[in-house]
Amino acid sequence: MASLSCALYLPTKCSSIRENGSINNIPQANSALSIQRPPVLDLAYAVAFNPATSLTAEQIRQSIPTEKQLTDPFRHGLIVEGGVRYRQTVVIRSYEVGPDKTATLETILNLLQETALNHVWLSGLLGDGFGATHGMMRNNLIWVVTRMHVLLDEYPIWGEVVEIDTWVGASGKNGMRRDWLLRSRFSGQVFCRATRHEHTWVMMNQQTRRLSKMPEEVRDEISPWFTETRAVQEKALEKIDKLDDNAKYVNSNLKPKWNDLDMNHHVNNVKYVRWMLETIPDEFMEDHQLSSIVLQYRRECDSSDTVQSICEPDEDSLPRDTNIRILTGFSLAPEILDGGGLLGTFDKWPTRYTHLLQIKGEKKDEEIVRGKTTWRRKKKKSLNSSH
Amino acid sequence: MASLSCALYLPTKCSSIRENGSINNIPQANSALSIQRPPVLDLAYAVAFNPATSLTAEQIRQSIPTEKQLTDPFRHGLIVEGGVRYRQTVVIRSYEVGPDKTATLETILNLLQETALNHVWLSGLLGDGFGATHGMMRNNLIWVVTRMHVLLDEYPIWGEVVEIDTWVGASGKNGMRRDWLLRSRFSGQVFCRATRHEHTWVMMNQQTRRLSKMPEEVRDEISPWFTETRAVQEKALEKIDKLDDNAKYVNSNLKPKWNDLDMNHHVNNVKYVRWMLETIPDEFMEDHQLSSIVLQYRRECDSSDTVQSICEPDEDSLPRDTNIRILTGFSLAPEILDGGGLLGTFDKWPTRYTHLLQIKGEKKDEEIVRGKTTWRRKKKKSLNSSH
Repeated sequence: MASLSCALYLPTKCSSIRENGSINNIPQANSALSIQRPPVLDLAYAVAFNPATSLTAEQIRQSIPTEKQLTDPFRHGLIVEGGVRYRQTVVIRSYEVGPDKTATLETILNLLQETALNHVWLSGLLGDGFGATHGMMRNNLIWVVTRMHVLLDEYPIWGEVVEIDTWVGASGKNGMRRDWLLRSRFSGQVFCRATRHEHTWVMMNQQTRRLSKMPEEVRDEISPWFTETRAVQEKALEKIDKLDDNAKYVNSNLKPKWNDLDMNHHVNNVKYVRWMLETIPDEFMEDHQLSSIVLQYRRECDSSDTVQSICEPDEDSLPRDTNIRILTGFSLAPEILDGGGLLGTFDKWPTRYTHLLQIKGEKKDEEIVRGKTTWRRKKKKSLNSSH
Repeated sequence: MASLSCALYLPTKCSSIRENGSINNIPQANSALSIQRPPVLDLAYAVAFNPATSLTAEQIRQSIPTEKQLTDPFRHGLIVEGGVRYRQTVVIRSYEVGPDKTATLETILNLLQETALNHVWLSGLLGDGFGATHGMMRNNLIWVVTRMHVLLDEYPIWGEVVEIDTWVGASGKNGMRRDWLLRSRFSGQVFCRATRHEHTWVMMNQQTRRLSKMPEEVRDEISPWFTETRAVQEKALEKIDKLDDNAKYVNSNLKPKWNDLDMNHHVNNVKYVRWMLETIPDEFMEDHQLSSIVLQYRRECDSSDTVQSICEPDEDSLPRDTNIRILTGFSLAPEILDGGGLLGTFDKWPTRYTHLLQIKGEKKDEEIVRGKTTWRRKKKKSLNSSH
């Protein structure tokens, strides 16, 4: 129990400071109206602001630092590994898990996006909601993701404490690579590794949307953060075939709603993935878990676009009971293959799918993103659920 | 600056403990594969477990305490106000805000649900994902929400640090009331007040779905947590008219997807609200902000149900420029009324809407939830957005 007592001391001391601090001593209230507290100035990053600068009301509420910080107490974030890597501790929330009590893919992708931005936030470089630096904003430049690869060995469960590390590296002359590692805080087990690959963060001029070289000013801002460490050991760029309407599963007439837009008025990347996965039958989703997703982005999607989601099972991942038939010389009923522990890994469903999201135009269709997903059967042992 | 220095000291000290602690000292890794850490046992709530009890792998990962705890360091949660109220500090995440950079209603509702469960979690009473206590599980009982009222004076913005208080009280002989107060940590300004009213947490037998009296065992568990404080000063129960297909806005054929189910295999409450609000035209949503929502629940919705969302503007909240016409004796062009700062509060849209979600059955329709929403025009001054 020795290691436990140390660990218990840590958070308890941390929190009791907060609990006993004057900012939490709110007098007992008898009605809702008397619960109002006196204004408290506890801008955690205020030290980083130039006192000569006048801040807008929004800037005070957001308190984005303008100098590098080592910790973000409210987000449980800190800079580690020689001052370049960002680490954030999060607890998987009740509404972030699906029917099997594991975090949804959307939750994971959201947390990756969130920690990436928080990394830039803590670096003192954050200029806008895209994660653009001040130098980029001065040069009218934005980041555009071109490729992403997420590997999921296991999914965290409701209430689990998870540690997310993220860091960046150079990608060619004008790009940046961002990596993530998501693991259990208790056991250290790695749940998820992810990368935005090679030319992933290509810079484009905002008005003309042309590729742009990275100005020295921007390179000087971000290059001190670059490291060589890779979260994903990658092979050559995967080729993803372009699908058409003749694919097995097609969802048409998808329209972004106001709620689907992010703070930059674009359709949220995670919405793309939701559209992709909703094209696969629910029957498959109930028993399978995504183990890998590759996304190759072509263009953005506006709120006025009508989108089509196309999905095709990969032929070479088709039912493995075909092989069984060849091996045993006779066919087993699918239920036997499905239900039995003996052949529990065999499946009547393909395990790899190719995806395409495209904008249905009057004259021609335009690709938004191509994708490739790989799946595995869920473990039979489910969490204790009384319903 | 005196108050600042104190506040800065607080989180920095808190985090530096974490940073210097051995659990964060991970050796520099050269490749992803070497980033693995030795297993660390830092079960924050381990002290609350009976050492004689053998825990499942899931229970260890979740570490739900079986005795009352005063702090939850990983969630930034603590028990305040004489030991009955739960308070959690959260930062609004980048993907939790909409195009105007303010938290979406869905985010707010999710955070209310999350803090309610975390309150029960910290109380040591949590038995399942519904928030049922151990005594309830022994008696085969669940909570069923019957009514909810959320008031939103202002919306928190991206990156804002928010404090959420939640507490419970008695509601009649067999019910419970839960209240919430959500405010800015910096200014103390109240953003949101909410309550699940009167008979809200009625207990029903799980198999037969009949109302059940609250057993003494359960009353003894929860009554020490009851307080009289109210977050919302309520009038009599609001009557919400039942709508039919002749209403102005109707969305039919809504089907829950696998992703819409929560860990209890029910359609998430927040999905109900999304269906309701998506029935109002996007054109309205762009300029308006919800200030109040009342929900009266009738029955649950299964994954196999087909849902219809019906919405009707309230006549007595119809265009106020009609009144202007009466007052001034001539009609002003809507653009003048809309655009001018002088008459900026006038609007061509109604400000109150009645809602109904119902299951379309072969023989008859069944009500899921009735709702009433009240809206206000968004402030013209938007956050700095470069796109």
